[in-house]
Amino acid sequence: MKDPAGIQFDDARKHAVAELKLPGVRHELPDLPTSFTELHIEQGPRLIDGGLQIGLVTAIVGQRRYTVTVRGIANHAGTTPMNDRADALQRAVDLIVALRNAASQLKSDLTFTVGEMHVSPNTSNVIPGLVTFTIDCRNNDEAVLDQFEHLIHQIVETPSHAKISSSVNRWAESNVTHLDDQLLENNQQLVDHLGFKSVQLASGAGHDSQIMAKVTRTTMIFVPSINGISHAPEENTSEADLLHGVELLAASLHQQAY
Amino acid sequence: MKDPAGIQFDDARKHAVAELKLPGVRHELPDLPTSFTELHIEQGPRLIDGGLQIGLVTAIVGQRRYTVTVRGIANHAGTTPMNDRADALQRAVDLIVALRNAASQLKSDLTFTVGEMHVSPNTSNVIPGLVTFTIDCRNNDEAVLDQFEHLIHQIVETPSHAKISSSVNRWAESNVTHLDDQLLENNQQLVDHLGFKSVQLASGAGHDSQIMAKVTRTTMIFVPSINGISHAPEENTSEADLLHGVELLAASLHQQAY
Repeated sequence: MKDPAGIQFDDARKHAVAELKLPGVRHELPDLPTSFTELHIEQGPRLIDGGLQIGLVTAIVGQRRYTVTVRGIANHAGTTPMNDRADALQRAVDLIVALRNAASQLKSDLTFTVGEMHVSPNTSNVIPGLVTFTIDCRNNDEAVLDQFEHLIHQIVETPSHAKISSSVNRWAESNVTHLDDQLLENNQQLVDHLGFKSVQLASGAGHDSQIMAKVTRTTMIFVPSINGISHAPEENTSEADLLHGVELLAASLHQQAY
Repeated sequence: MKDPAGIQFDDARKHAVAELKLPGVRHELPDLPTSFTELHIEQGPRLIDGGLQIGLVTAIVGQRRYTVTVRGIANHAGTTPMNDRADALQRAVDLIVALRNAASQLKSDLTFTVGEMHVSPNTSNVIPGLVTFTIDCRNNDEAVLDQFEHLIHQIVETPSHAKISSSVNRWAESNVTHLDDQLLENNQQLVDHLGFKSVQLASGAGHDSQIMAKVTRTTMIFVPSINGISHAPEENTSEADLLHGVELLAASLHQQAY
């Protein structure tokens, strides 16, 4: 990835880090803050779609990521009869449909995403012999993630064809982070007092708060992001909504400090 | 692609072509052969699985290749609610299932292969915004290919979601080639006289015969390929089956010449 001036992302990153002129790392942190408050755009559409000004974050979802590997037998697309194929892509497609159905039947707000897929040899006139795809799933209840993990194994590991095998590997996991209930309640009272329309919600994305919650009482405030877009050039929030967030942040910090 | 000595495929190809010391191209071909006979391995499993020695080729299948393009909206896998997604991969998966079902319901020996698939941005934590996949289909009846092409358009172009569109593009086509009926009948009599077990079948792969059939009477003889493998290092045919093929070829050429 290069910017318009042809500078590699990693070079720009190293340059920026070098410019920070970091002091020596402090191995001891005797003066931990007594609380941490993060103000952020929602990165999703719930506030903007609901005509709300503020989101008060109850928890940051737990995430698990998996790769499913399907091994069949690559062969000639013209000369291999349909009933004599071990087509890894067709099996992968059936697995994705079954996993999607299982996810939707959990009746929770589990998110389920197949974002990455690789087909081999990936040529129009060859039956695919190997397919891998990823699963990203998130929820604010570990029990739901456990339940879905059980279903993933059940679906992927049930044999379907003598010459096709499939397996699943979990390669990333982060637990649910519950933010501070007392700070949440205080923020709710402040929001109501300020007259902003608000909702309490879990964050589907990871945040700094996730790290800070391990060492101190942590709370988090969302403002709407237009069309729910984030990490893209179109990311935007109205000036009015930015000011609502700042107003609540100031009130909350004042309350925490005095 | 390099061989074990590190020579690029394309360099080896150019070297081989240069070594041919080709004479000047003849722009006129006054002395066309009166017939053309091709001996080839089957490249499929029908002869080997059926315990047969000879395949007599009736036709070379017509092929059509398409690319299906599905455009959704790429978005964050964690913060985008399930009911607010325009997931191009999930739509592509549904299309592949529908196309596969349509192909199998044609009750012909149409081959249907999705060999190549590209997902964008192809990252585990991003909902795919763009997916393309290919369709390779083949049959020895143009009417069946026409019928399936009609179904492809119907399936792909039926709207399913306000924010997802899909389209199909045919980028390759070759018509069914019917080989010579009289030569086929003569070969059948010779095979029966020689006592070889045989079957008449269409070829699912393209062959030189396809080109020659345009200028002269053409026929084609298959011998079994072990496990139906072709275009791979494991491609093999037993010595006995090679000799059956040569025996029939010699008898056929003798009959054609005298």
